[in-house]
Amino acid sequence: MSRKKLQLPSRLVHMEPFRVMTVLQRAIQLEAAGRKIIHMEVGEPDFSTARPIVEAGIRALDSGLTQYTAAEGIVELREAISAHYAKHYGVQIDRDRIFITPGASGGLLLFTNLLVNAGEGVLLCDPAYPCYRNYIYMVGAEPQLVPVGIETNFQPSVASLNKHCKSNTSGLWLASPGNPTGTILQRNDLVETLEWAEGKKLNVLVDEIYHGLHYVDDLPSALEVDTDTFVVNSFSKYFGMTGWRLGWVVVPSEYQEIVSTLAQNLYISASSIAQYAALAAFEEDSSAILEQRRDSFRRRRDFLSTALKGLGFTLPDDIQGAFYIYAGIENFSDDSEKFCADILEEHGVAITPGRDFGESDSSLFVRFAFTTDLDNLQLGVERLTRALRKAH
Amino acid sequence: MSRKKLQLPSRLVHMEPFRVMTVLQRAIQLEAAGRKIIHMEVGEPDFSTARPIVEAGIRALDSGLTQYTAAEGIVELREAISAHYAKHYGVQIDRDRIFITPGASGGLLLFTNLLVNAGEGVLLCDPAYPCYRNYIYMVGAEPQLVPVGIETNFQPSVASLNKHCKSNTSGLWLASPGNPTGTILQRNDLVETLEWAEGKKLNVLVDEIYHGLHYVDDLPSALEVDTDTFVVNSFSKYFGMTGWRLGWVVVPSEYQEIVSTLAQNLYISASSIAQYAALAAFEEDSSAILEQRRDSFRRRRDFLSTALKGLGFTLPDDIQGAFYIYAGIENFSDDSEKFCADILEEHGVAITPGRDFGESDSSLFVRFAFTTDLDNLQLGVERLTRALRKAH
Repeated sequence: MSRKKLQLPSRLVHMEPFRVMTVLQRAIQLEAAGRKIIHMEVGEPDFSTARPIVEAGIRALDSGLTQYTAAEGIVELREAISAHYAKHYGVQIDRDRIFITPGASGGLLLFTNLLVNAGEGVLLCDPAYPCYRNYIYMVGAEPQLVPVGIETNFQPSVASLNKHCKSNTSGLWLASPGNPTGTILQRNDLVETLEWAEGKKLNVLVDEIYHGLHYVDDLPSALEVDTDTFVVNSFSKYFGMTGWRLGWVVVPSEYQEIVSTLAQNLYISASSIAQYAALAAFEEDSSAILEQRRDSFRRRRDFLSTALKGLGFTLPDDIQGAFYIYAGIENFSDDSEKFCADILEEHGVAITPGRDFGESDSSLFVRFAFTTDLDNLQLGVERLTRALRKAH
Repeated sequence: MSRKKLQLPSRLVHMEPFRVMTVLQRAIQLEAAGRKIIHMEVGEPDFSTARPIVEAGIRALDSGLTQYTAAEGIVELREAISAHYAKHYGVQIDRDRIFITPGASGGLLLFTNLLVNAGEGVLLCDPAYPCYRNYIYMVGAEPQLVPVGIETNFQPSVASLNKHCKSNTSGLWLASPGNPTGTILQRNDLVETLEWAEGKKLNVLVDEIYHGLHYVDDLPSALEVDTDTFVVNSFSKYFGMTGWRLGWVVVPSEYQEIVSTLAQNLYISASSIAQYAALAAFEEDSSAILEQRRDSFRRRRDFLSTALKGLGFTLPDDIQGAFYIYAGIENFSDDSEKFCADILEEHGVAITPGRDFGESDSSLFVRFAFTTDLDNLQLGVERLTRALRKAH
C-alpha cells in the first residue's frame, strides 16, 4: 500500500528532543572513537542499585512474584512509605493516599490527567524539568512559565507568581530540590507559596523526587505544610533505582477512587518485582549504603561548586540538593549550546545547555550533573580550566 | 489549610472504574470469609513467568543492570523482536522501527499522543478493551463505537465501518485476537479493512497483544498486510510477563524520531531488568514452556466453549485466540450485571459483565476468562449448571 501522509497532533509541535540526549549520543560517539569523555550531562546516579534492594528483587523473582499487582501498588510498600513520612517528616499520611507509580513519570502522567483540563494554564518555573511542559501540552493545556533566577535561589517569589497568574491558570507545579538548579524552597517560602496558591484556588503539585539527596538540615515536604498538596516522589534518585521504574504519589483522600481508576487505565500497575524490591530500600542495611552515597554526592557538590566559582561561573551560594549545578556562563559566552558543543568536542567534557530547561536566559546557562566520581570531576575541572584559559 | 474544592477535568467524567475490579474485590472478600471462588474474571495468565526468563532477570540484577536504558529500549531486544517477525510472520521489520514500552499500556499511551488530536474521532469496536476509549478521552478526542456482533465474529465489517465513519474520524483501532471476544480478523478481512482505512486516509492501530495465544493456523500480523500500520504488542500474555510491565510497538520509519522524543517524555525508558529478562523469552527453552502453556489454554478453550454452548450460552463457533469467551446470556437474563453478581454471590463463580467492554447490547453478554486450570473450570461449569437449572 502507498504510504499515508498524516498530520501530527498539535501537541507534538511543542515537543523537542532533549539536548542532553544529543550531547550524550555525541559523547558516546567520541568514546567509540577512543576519547575519554567526562560525563556531567546525565541526570542519573552513577551507582547501580544497592545490594540489599537487588537481593530483595531476586527473592521476589525466585518466589514467582511476577504478576500484576493492584493498580494502587502492594499494601506493604504503601505502608512502608507511610512509615517513611512519619519517621522523616513527622506527618501522618494514610497508606490509602499513597499510590505506587511506574516511575515519577507515571505520577506526572496521573496528575496531568487528574488535574489539568484542556485550555487551562499551569504555572511552572523557568528553568524546570523539561517533561513538565510536555505533559501539559499533551492534554491541550498551556504551560505558563515563571522566570526564576539566582536572586530568588531559582525558586518562584509570590510577586513573580502573581505577575504570571492568568484568568485560565488552574495549577502550580513546584520542585524542591529542583532540576536543573539543585535549590530548595525554604520552609517559610513554601508556606507562603502554598498560601498564595490556596488564595488563588490553584491546585499544587510538588515534585519531591530529589528528597533524600539534600545537603541542608531542613528540607520540608509540602505535605507538612498542606496535606492536600499533590506530591510526586520516586525510587530513582536517593534510592538509586532508576532502571526499575518505580515512584509514588500522595493524593488528598477524596481523590483516591478516581486516582485508582486512572491508574488502572494508564498503566494497570507498576512492576511487581520493583515493588517487592523497594520494600528493602527502607531497611537499615540499605539506609547505611544510601547515606554513604549521599555523603559522596555532598563531597562532589563541595568540590565542583567551589571549582566552578573559581573558574568564573555564576552559581548560587549553596547547592542544597539533587546532583545538579545550574551555572551562568555570562563571563564566557552568550550561546550555551555552542559553549557545550565546543567543550565536548575540544575538551571532552559533556554538559547540558540551559535550553533544555526553559526559555528565559537559557542561552546563558549550562547544567553540570555531579553524577560521576571525584577523580572524573577533578579531571573535568582541569579540562574546563584549560578550555576557559585558552578561550579568554 | 482548608480543603480546596476542585473541578475535575472533563475527560474524567467518562472514566468509570472497571467492573471486573469490583467483581475481583468481592470475590476476594468471599474467599476471606471461607468460600471457594472459581475465578474466571481476571485477564491474566495463571502461570508465573517461565523459569528461563526469571533466571535471565536474576542475571541482569546480579550484573547490576539497574539503570535507565535508551528510551527506544536496548538494541539486543529490538533485534530479537525483529528476528521474531522474520521467523513467525516472514516480514522484515527494521529494529529501528521497534520501540520497547512499559507494557502495552505504554504503547497505547504513546500512540494516543502520537496519532490522536483533540476533537478528532477514532473508530473502535464495541465491545473492546475498555482502556482504548479512556485513552482517547484523555486527549480530548471522541471514541466512535462500531457495534460488532456474533454475525461478523465480533470484528468490524467494512459496511459497519463506513456507517460509523464521520467527517472528524482520523483513526481506526483494531484488535486481533480481541478482548473480550477472543476472535481474530481473518487475513482477507484484514486486507479489506486496511484498504478501506487507506482509502479514508485513516491511521490504523492494531493491538496484537494476544498473538501467540491463538488456536488457528493463520493469524496474520497487520504488518504483513500494510507495513505502515501502528502495531502494539506485549510480553504480558503469550510470554507470561504481566508483572514486569513490558511491551513493544512498531511504527513506520518516518515516525522514529518523534516517537523517541515522546518516549523520553512519557516514561524515560521501560524497566531495564524486564528488558534483559525478555531476551530469554525468544530462546528455545522458553519457547518449549510457552508452547506447552498455549496447549493448556487450547484444552481449556475446548472444554469451556463446549460446556457453555451446552448450557445455553450463545458464542461464536470458534474462539480463535486470547483466553476469553464473550458469551450471550439472552436465554437467562437481560441484565448481565445482576447475572454476574448473582452467580458470584450464590454460586461462587466470578465472571465479568459485558458493560466493561462497551455499550451495545452489553447487558446481554458476560466475559469468561479461562485463566484458571481445567479442574477449576470443571467445577465452575458444575456450579453454573446448578445455577441455571435452579433459575429456569
